[in-house]
Amino acid sequence: MARGNTIQKEKVAIIGSGNWGTAAARIIGENVTRHPDFHPEVKMWVFEEIIENRALTEIINEQHENIKYLPGFKIPENVIADPDMLNTIRDATILVFVVPHQFLYKVCDQLKGNIHPKAIGISLIKGCDTGETGIRPISTILEEALKIHICTLSGANIANEIAEGKFSETTIGYKIREEGELFKRLFETSYYQVGIIDDVIGVEMCGALKNVVALGAGIVDGLKMGDNSKAAIIRIGLSEMKKFLKMFYKNIKDETFFESCGVADVITSCYGGRNRRVAEAHVTTGKSFEQLEKELLGGQKLQGTLTAKEVCTMISIKGLENEFKLFVAIYRIAFEGLEPKKIFDVIVD
Amino acid sequence: MARGNTIQKEKVAIIGSGNWGTAAARIIGENVTRHPDFHPEVKMWVFEEIIENRALTEIINEQHENIKYLPGFKIPENVIADPDMLNTIRDATILVFVVPHQFLYKVCDQLKGNIHPKAIGISLIKGCDTGETGIRPISTILEEALKIHICTLSGANIANEIAEGKFSETTIGYKIREEGELFKRLFETSYYQVGIIDDVIGVEMCGALKNVVALGAGIVDGLKMGDNSKAAIIRIGLSEMKKFLKMFYKNIKDETFFESCGVADVITSCYGGRNRRVAEAHVTTGKSFEQLEKELLGGQKLQGTLTAKEVCTMISIKGLENEFKLFVAIYRIAFEGLEPKKIFDVIVD
Repeated sequence: MARGNTIQKEKVAIIGSGNWGTAAARIIGENVTRHPDFHPEVKMWVFEEIIENRALTEIINEQHENIKYLPGFKIPENVIADPDMLNTIRDATILVFVVPHQFLYKVCDQLKGNIHPKAIGISLIKGCDTGETGIRPISTILEEALKIHICTLSGANIANEIAEGKFSETTIGYKIREEGELFKRLFETSYYQVGIIDDVIGVEMCGALKNVVALGAGIVDGLKMGDNSKAAIIRIGLSEMKKFLKMFYKNIKDETFFESCGVADVITSCYGGRNRRVAEAHVTTGKSFEQLEKELLGGQKLQGTLTAKEVCTMISIKGLENEFKLFVAIYRIAFEGLEPKKIFDVIVD
Repeated sequence: MARGNTIQKEKVAIIGSGNWGTAAARIIGENVTRHPDFHPEVKMWVFEEIIENRALTEIINEQHENIKYLPGFKIPENVIADPDMLNTIRDATILVFVVPHQFLYKVCDQLKGNIHPKAIGISLIKGCDTGETGIRPISTILEEALKIHICTLSGANIANEIAEGKFSETTIGYKIREEGELFKRLFETSYYQVGIIDDVIGVEMCGALKNVVALGAGIVDGLKMGDNSKAAIIRIGLSEMKKFLKMFYKNIKDETFFESCGVADVITSCYGGRNRRVAEAHVTTGKSFEQLEKELLGGQKLQGTLTAKEVCTMISIKGLENEFKLFVAIYRIAFEGLEPKKIFDVIVD
């Protein structure tokens, strides 16, 4: 029996069903039948789309596959797709948020006042949001809008590799240990190992800041500077991430950076991923990041440059440029036309 | 004036002149002329070899190039090669040790009783030595044999990239801060940035243990398990390195693992380097590590497997196998025929 005997069975609702949401739904659907904490049925809110004359929810509920966002992988039959958000979350005591972050406020507006009084949530949302005072963690936005506890989940987690059952790790940040442990039971499998740590914001924000570091790694790749330089950029990036989070947010833990959400996710982003790729292309082609976004990403926005801009605004307001030389150098390369090869001069200066 | 006004000018002797020693000599030769702490002449002990009828020392002193171990890069003229070790270290107050570690005891025997009373040393020697009680750090061996203070230097430092002036970082471990700062002045350049930390053994031992982690990374590469898995192995490896050093040695610092000698060197070894390469080949060809050493390394020994063996002996004596599941899995794959794909089962078990 879960959460201090007040809830018989946790009912899980997943808000979102993209590539990452569907991969998560596969795990959650399996795990709710393995652990007595959970009700065996899982609801998943799907932004309805029509695909070859059929509704996506209908396809998911009949074929048990999200043919648009995670084709080729079965979804357990106890995961029920629903296009109606309020119907999806009715009676749910666990809300898993995994929508693209630009839909966040709309989702909050719909959910406000309609949530189970004992509900808690977990954010799998990538990226970050920007308010008047700089970057606002998504978990903070959810907590303030919905008045519920929010945990965060982030790590070196390429969705398709997880769907394939390839060994991966992730990190869950919690404020109340019991909630962290509950979410660990909801997500952990033999091939998807979950670490938990008392640091909601650190876990989430590592997932945003790593995109800035990945731009640095891509710049070094473009310059063909070799392994020492690349390792140095990754190391400096990780240490600026740590310094930044400790300066601008409360209760950030050192250990967070040793978890999957920290060092491991930074590594995957610096050796793969679109931020690294676009930054490398900027160096080798001389084209602007804006131009390359259009050419290489089919209209999607590059998270790293957006984040670098917000981060450097926050740094600049406090006059801390000398403490974050790599972040500043990356910003200047992306937005002020600094020559990429000057990156090392700025760091050492 | 250096070291509490007792030494007017530090005289530097470099013991060793291989690929790494010669790259270091280029930096040291330049830096002694830039900082008032140092005497402008540097002696370098060279294991004499005859190359095309000329002595290597003669070639170095006339051509100012080590044509055998670092061809194509000039050595400053104030670096004087000498085949006589005692002559090399006469009056030297700073000894830079950079011989292959199998020559260590011979070097100690020659130097004992012949060292300047104020001398201090720094070890750039890679690898580790094994005694009756497991791995003995090279800095400890030097300290005990020579009765002088020893600092250590280690990092993501491919010698040729440093010789090319590509941006790199390194870490110096010290016991006495003033000595760490003196060595920082001896080694730091605009393209070779030095971090210093109060952890002699941690800095050195990271450089030995990373070779074990690199075997793990190579195994995952061979299995074609993707980015999540590789990042997970690197992260778990780094955390086992930290746990191992904290359990078996004293005064190891958490921060050491965020330095170049820690996370950065682990990354370079897991994406490049011979340990990764041989482990990958073991998985893809099924050949033994011993066989692959012969085929791929031209008689050189693989540091990772030697270190894994010693590390696992130390772990096993204390019955700590459950605390070091990755190290144990790597050992079992290398020495006990465990199937590589079982690596994840062992970790999760």
